[in-house]
Parts: sequence; structure tokens; C-alpha cells
Amino acid sequence: MPAALSSIETPALLLDHSRMDANIARMRTHLARLGVPMRPHVKTSKCIEATRRLFDTGVGPITVSTLREAQFFFEHGFTDILYGVAIAPNRFEATADLIRAGVSLKLVLDSLETASLLAEYARTHRQAFDVLLEIDCDGHRSGLPPDSPLIVEIAQLLRAAGIDVQGVMTHAGNSYDSRSVDEIVRYAHQERDAVVVAARRLREAGFAAPVVSVGSTPTALFADDLSGVTEVRAGVFIFFDLVMAGLGVCTQADIAVSVLTTVIGHQPQKGWTIVDAGWMALSRDRGTAAQAVDQGYGVVCDANGKPLDDLIVIAANQEHGIVALRDPDARQAHALHLPVGTQLRILPNHACATSAQHAGYRVLDESGAHEYWPRIAGW
Amino acid sequence: MPAALSSIETPALLLDHSRMDANIARMRTHLARLGVPMRPHVKTSKCIEATRRLFDTGVGPITVSTLREAQFFFEHGFTDILYGVAIAPNRFEATADLIRAGVSLKLVLDSLETASLLAEYARTHRQAFDVLLEIDCDGHRSGLPPDSPLIVEIAQLLRAAGIDVQGVMTHAGNSYDSRSVDEIVRYAHQERDAVVVAARRLREAGFAAPVVSVGSTPTALFADDLSGVTEVRAGVFIFFDLVMAGLGVCTQADIAVSVLTTVIGHQPQKGWTIVDAGWMALSRDRGTAAQAVDQGYGVVCDANGKPLDDLIVIAANQEHGIVALRDPDARQAHALHLPVGTQLRILPNHACATSAQHAGYRVLDESGAHEYWPRIAGW
Repeated sequence: MPAALSSIETPALLLDHSRMDANIARMRTHLARLGVPMRPHVKTSKCIEATRRLFDTGVGPITVSTLREAQFFFEHGFTDILYGVAIAPNRFEATADLIRAGVSLKLVLDSLETASLLAEYARTHRQAFDVLLEIDCDGHRSGLPPDSPLIVEIAQLLRAAGIDVQGVMTHAGNSYDSRSVDEIVRYAHQERDAVVVAARRLREAGFAAPVVSVGSTPTALFADDLSGVTEVRAGVFIFFDLVMAGLGVCTQADIAVSVLTTVIGHQPQKGWTIVDAGWMALSRDRGTAAQAVDQGYGVVCDANGKPLDDLIVIAANQEHGIVALRDPDARQAHALHLPVGTQLRILPNHACATSAQHAGYRVLDESGAHEYWPRIAGW
Repeated sequence: MPAALSSIETPALLLDHSRMDANIARMRTHLARLGVPMRPHVKTSKCIEATRRLFDTGVGPITVSTLREAQFFFEHGFTDILYGVAIAPNRFEATADLIRAGVSLKLVLDSLETASLLAEYARTHRQAFDVLLEIDCDGHRSGLPPDSPLIVEIAQLLRAAGIDVQGVMTHAGNSYDSRSVDEIVRYAHQERDAVVVAARRLREAGFAAPVVSVGSTPTALFADDLSGVTEVRAGVFIFFDLVMAGLGVCTQADIAVSVLTTVIGHQPQKGWTIVDAGWMALSRDRGTAAQAVDQGYGVVCDANGKPLDDLIVIAANQEHGIVALRDPDARQAHALHLPVGTQLRILPNHACATSAQHAGYRVLDESGAHEYWPRIAGW
């Protein structure tokens, strides 16, 4: 095993610096070719050091999933922040505090109900807000239909309260369920068209709508034409994971995060190897379960990151993982014995979920040395 | 909504103190009737304040899932600690440190391979260890078959290195998959018999084997005869959850932890309510998926904890949950409108997994006031 790993207590979250750098370069190169800037989603890494590497200058526009992230990244020099979850009244005061502190904060909403409440708050507190209207491009989750008359109605209601309606945003969440790259390309067109149509409605009603924002890692990387789009939010591309590899968006060799684990036992007659990475270290995410190849709780690699035979984590308890061949019929005859104490790496189904189970990253560089990059957590 | 909740930022983990107390009392009463003491597993709460309530004197024997827990609970006065995950060489030094610091630490192992390594370490470092041999009672995970000749062979190997083989332990993990209370009772008998048989083998070979340890919440609560068993490890009973309710081990009204969340939007034509509790707050645990009633990502209650219609969390993204009727065909016609800003509570599938997504508990007592109890995390 690499000397640098043997000193790391397991389970631990590893981050391969050069893979991350290559993933960032791929996204930047692709979007530069399409002529659209990036507003990366920091919910994947929740880490200052990783986020700084997304930008030449070490800072830039970001998307966050919690106000805790907004506060934290602002304290580290990031000022242009889109809060990507629909705002609700219990957070009006906290967002106003961030704005007064100097954050250029974009809020998101998708209903007359929320718009009315925000307008009332803005009037009562004489507080300015910047808002994007959330558009539903694929039925995945939230947002207004792109052709909804409510788009203009909500924008006018907000404008009347002095709120700056800056444009529209959407998220092609269903692209994660694509069965082919062609399908991802179709989702990318659909995502782009939804916000371009919605922005046109706003402009026809007299709004400048300078912001037309899309974002999901699969659509961002396979979009071939983002005409009319002004920014791309994507997050998981920085690390990639088995779900993305299953989609054909990356290869397993691109996955930059893994969980370092130690063999703690065996059930030889079953072909099981027991490791000290259970769901507490791997997360309960089973995002590959619906894909063509179900990776269990993750693909098992040696300590250098090379996938081993066809081993996956077939089951996970809180602090135990069961490693075995993917094919149940082949397990009993499987001769590979990984001695107690052997270090392995597990590639995660979902980088966001697995990383969230850890307080930080052990960052590996080419020299084999490692430093520690903390994450933030909570709300 | 209760005044005490409206000031809590969401999502947040709530703990109902009186439900927890009742759950603890139920287990204690049951085990007292069977005449077997408890060595509760603290991996569920990972919380000093909750763990103290398990014991009249505020301390007692505990089971831990990580050495971090062992260290933390030792610092708070707990000295009799069973580390329930098979020991591996990378942790020999850390366990020796704990023992020298004053922890009466029981280690677990189930192989000649690990026993040889530990024996070598014990000899080289002149370090005493207390060990329990892990027995497999149901094919769930780890452990030696109860009738394995390896049990005595391993014990003798350890004894020759001055290691105290104190007995045997097992965990009826498969009881979580029971389809009836009768089946749980059968698992309880099987669990008991496995360790009693294994302990007998040790005694026949000249080991006193004073410790005969079992533990899972379902088997602990439905065991009717624990003759020969000297302690019961169980964890999740302190909070209970939907998996336990689905097994018939508790009712939904016994579940002491829930996630407080806020309505942030709607998709009215689909009958969806969007809330700010996604998998980051709920966990990805889908433990009820294989049960008779699939509870999605959790059962939706009003802010007082009363289940609402037949609403569950049908899908979860990182910071978004989608709430809808369980029956897809009934959703569109569902008239209940929960206004933006409404607080709800979500009952968790798995209390251990959901609680692990949070840094601590907002503890509710009858007065409606709440205090904050922190959890520990990591390894």
C-alpha cells in the first residue's frame, strides 16, 4: 500500500488532487468552448480549498444549498452567491442579514405564495432582494412551467415591492436517470429551452432578465449549444462518482473521492470480506441501484485505487461493509484472500452523499503526501 | 405550531424526551423481568445526555461502534466499554492507549488470523487485552459458527499470549428482516442458543467464559427466556423508528426522534409539497422499502408530531424533500394545502442513520421548552 495511506486511520475520505484538477479542467474547457461562465455548486465539496481551485483567481460566483454554506463561503471571500433552494419565510431574516453583510445573494422562488410573503417582508423591512424565478424543465422537483403566465405575474408582484427579478434558473434533475448520452443531450436542450422561453416571457413583459441559469453535471458536460444561457451551475463534476460513470458522463478512473477502509474479517465459505466502512462512512446512497450496473454500496479498489476483480460492497451496516463479487453465484468459489489489515478504497455511488458522512478530505497528491481539507456541515 | 418549535431553524433533529424515557423504561422493565442486565449500544444516540438516562446512576456498561465513541464516553465517566466491531491491527495501538488510560475495554474478534496478530502484539508490547469471540447466530454478517472448533482454538491461542478470553457475543441482525413477532421470538431463541452453545464449548475447554452477550432491539424486546445470557446489547430502542414500527416492535407513537422541516413550495397539479428536509437531513436510509408498508423517506406529521393523512416523503434530493400521499393515484385529487412556511415533522426510517446526519438534538419536554444535546461524529 502507499506509505502515505498506511498512517491514515480508517474509514477516511480520500481526495485525489490530480483527478479533481482534471475534472475541473474538463468542465471549464467545455463551457469555455460554449462561451458560458460557470457558477459551480459547492454542495458537493462544502470545502474552501476545493472550491478555490474552480477559479483562476480563487474566487468566483457560486451556488449553495444552505445558508450555512453562504455564510461560510462569504467569510472566505466569496460574495456572489446563488442560494439554490426555494426561499421560505423562516429564512427571510437570515438572508437579509447576509445581504446587509455584503453578500450579493440571489434567492430562488417559484410561487405567488412565497413571492407575496417576500414582497411583504421587503416592504415592511425596506429590504432589497435579488430573485431568480425557478423554472421546471423536466418535472423533476420544483419550479414553474416555462410557459406559465404566473412567471410574469410573480415578477410584477416582486417588482412592485422593489425586488429585483434578475431572471430565471432551472435544474435538469431528471438527466440523472438518462439511459444514454443521446438522452442527456436531449435533456440539455430541454433544460436550455425551458429557461430561454421563460426569460423571453419576462423580457416581453419589460424585465431585462440578465440571468438565465441552468445546471446539472450531465447536461453541462454534454450540452452542445447553450445559446441564451448566461451561467451553468453544476456540482458533482468536481469529484464524479459511480452514478455519473454509470451514465457514461465519466469513467471510474475519473472519480476523485473514495473511502479508505481496512479489512477486519472474513466469512470464507460465503466469499465475504468484512471491512470497517459501513453506511456511516459510505452513506446509504444506492444511486446505482436503478442503473444498468448496480454497484451495491460501491466499487472496491486496492489501496492505489485500482478496481479489484469485480468486487463491490454488497451490504452495509453502520460500521461494517460486506465486500464480495458482484455475481452471487461466483462468490463461494472466489479465491482472493485479502488479509486482515489490508487497506482498500471504495468508490462512492454519490460523491455528495458519501462526502457528507465525513468531516473532511485526506488529499493525496503525486508525491504521496496528504493534507487535510475540512468540510462544513449543518444548516 | 408549538411556540417552542417556531424559533428552530429547519431542518433540525427533534428528540421527544418523554417518548425516549418511556422507551428506556420499557426495555429496562422487560430485561429486569428476564433477569439480564443491559449493555446498551450508544451508536444510536452518540450523545452523553441521552446515554446517561439509560442508567439509574448515570453511568454503566456500554457498547460502542467506534473508538472515537469509546474515547468520548470514557472522558464522560463511562469505563466499562465493549467495542462491537471486530478489532483489526490498525487499531491495536489505539485500543492499548484506551486500556492504559483506564478503560475496561472488551475487544471482539472472529478469526485465527486476527487472533494471531493480536497475540503477537500483546507479547511484543506486554499489553493485556480482554476479548470476546464473535459468534454468527444467523448468517447476517460476522462471527464464527457456534459449533466451530475454531472457537476453542482461537481462545487457546489468545490465552497463550496472556489475553483474557472473557466469553462470546453475537448480534441477531437478521431479526430486522422479520415478518412477524413470532419470527422475532424465533430469532431471539436462535441468538441465545448460539452464544450459549459457544460458551459451553469454551467452558468445556477450561475457560470460565463469564460473558455471554446478545443484542438487537427486536430480539431483546421479544425474548421470553434469556437463560445463560449475561448481558443484552441493543441500541435503537432508545429512539425507535419506522423500521421498528414496521416490524411491530413499537408503534409510530413511540418514535422519539423526528426531523423538523418547513414547507418551501408546491407542485399543485401533482399533489406535491416541497419541504426543506432532503436526504442531507433525513439520510438516504430506505429501510422500510422491503417491509410490508414502504414509508418512502419518512412519515409526515404536523408540528405536534401527529401523522398527517397518509403523507410520506416520496423522494429526496440533497436539501429538498417531496411530500405526497403514499398512493400515487390519489395524489392529484389531494386537497390538503400546507402553506409555505408550515412546519412539519418527519418520522425517520432508521433512527441511527437519520440522527447521524445532525450535529445534535433539539430536546422537547412537556413544557415546550427545548435544550440542545450534541452528538459526536467521526472515527
